[in-house]
Amino acid sequence: MAPSINAGKGTAIGLSYAAQALAVVGAALVLIWTIHFRGGLAWESSNKGLIFNLHPVLMLIGFIILGGEAIISYKALPLTKQTKKVIHLVLHAVALILGAIGIYTAFKYHNESGIANLYSLHSWIGIGVISLYAIQWIYGFIIFFYPGGSESLRNVSLPWHVLFGTFVYILALATATLGFLEKLTFLESSGVAKYGQEAFLVNFTAIISILYGTAVVVVSAIPVPAEDDFGYSAI
Amino acid sequence: MAPSINAGKGTAIGLSYAAQALAVVGAALVLIWTIHFRGGLAWESSNKGLIFNLHPVLMLIGFIILGGEAIISYKALPLTKQTKKVIHLVLHAVALILGAIGIYTAFKYHNESGIANLYSLHSWIGIGVISLYAIQWIYGFIIFFYPGGSESLRNVSLPWHVLFGTFVYILALATATLGFLEKLTFLESSGVAKYGQEAFLVNFTAIISILYGTAVVVVSAIPVPAEDDFGYSAI
Repeated sequence: MAPSINAGKGTAIGLSYAAQALAVVGAALVLIWTIHFRGGLAWESSNKGLIFNLHPVLMLIGFIILGGEAIISYKALPLTKQTKKVIHLVLHAVALILGAIGIYTAFKYHNESGIANLYSLHSWIGIGVISLYAIQWIYGFIIFFYPGGSESLRNVSLPWHVLFGTFVYILALATATLGFLEKLTFLESSGVAKYGQEAFLVNFTAIISILYGTAVVVVSAIPVPAEDDFGYSAI
Repeated sequence: MAPSINAGKGTAIGLSYAAQALAVVGAALVLIWTIHFRGGLAWESSNKGLIFNLHPVLMLIGFIILGGEAIISYKALPLTKQTKKVIHLVLHAVALILGAIGIYTAFKYHNESGIANLYSLHSWIGIGVISLYAIQWIYGFIIFFYPGGSESLRNVSLPWHVLFGTFVYILALATATLGFLEKLTFLESSGVAKYGQEAFLVNFTAIISILYGTAVVVVSAIPVPAEDDFGYSAI
């Protein structure tokens, strides 16, 4: 009933190339937005907007894109399973750390500009996402890497690891989309043109991010045999 | 490796009860918001806000909740496959029609209030979602109902019908979440308290909607044997 396993492998590899192209476009767009339109990036500045600018850059390139690469690394790289497992967990760890720094920059910007924290849906869901992501990473590390659960525990855990990981990643994408809309709404209420260059750039960045995330989720969902170099299993 | 098929059936039925409870809560919250906090619903009124209020009610109860019920009806109802197929396509048709009316109310509100149309990410993705939803419905109707494709075409189409339908539904949920954030951001910039009752109500409505949608997607993804009353197949 489902497409054949070999067709699945070809589709997964092809779509993972498409994901790379979308990642490059998304990363370029968020840098053009923050640097060209919003004045650049800074950790310390009297222009507090430059501190905020770190937030979308770290969340999109650091959290969403590196997290997505971590998810598809199993299907996209022709390496041994043990190597890919290390790549998977290291990329997710880097994504988690850059995501946490990215969230910190939003608080830093708010605090230094006298803006309230944690009142918006974007912030609420975002805090939920990073917490679930950390829990997922710790559980995965303990069960699948070190010290590692029993074979039966791994077998039971794997489909839930995939399901829960996919859920958290989709929620991360939704949160990023909320963030683009929220920031652009603030900018438009302070005079940025609703149909202008910058508004279109931000909305297209959000749409490219959704397409990238969709490619990631579909690649991860395509069945590939566990014994294949491109597959994965619980052991 | 995956949980057993019988465990899947029980989980699917249990989770579909949870979805019903979340649907009732979500519907109640959006009515409390629009009627109690925002003054009520009206098709024609000099208070244009009452026209807008139809939009979240129709999109959440009509589009998201009825669409979700359409998706899980296969797994949630112990009826014959042919009956469930009719329920599935009729509920989706009603959801599509109420969704289209709901989108019309947003344009009507904008036009009668002198507000620009189609500049926000919410509106862009929303137009995309309703278009994809309509395409998905028409393709499903032709292939699986009338006149119906060949057995091999149905077999090839079914996994893509499920995958594409899930994608569109998740995108619909993301769009609803964007809508709650956008409206609340406008309200807060016109004086609604950022940590007040109404702000919390709107954000909780959005979170309940996400939980409902998650339950729907998980129920639809749980494997149940095709020959079981709760399963579905291409024929």
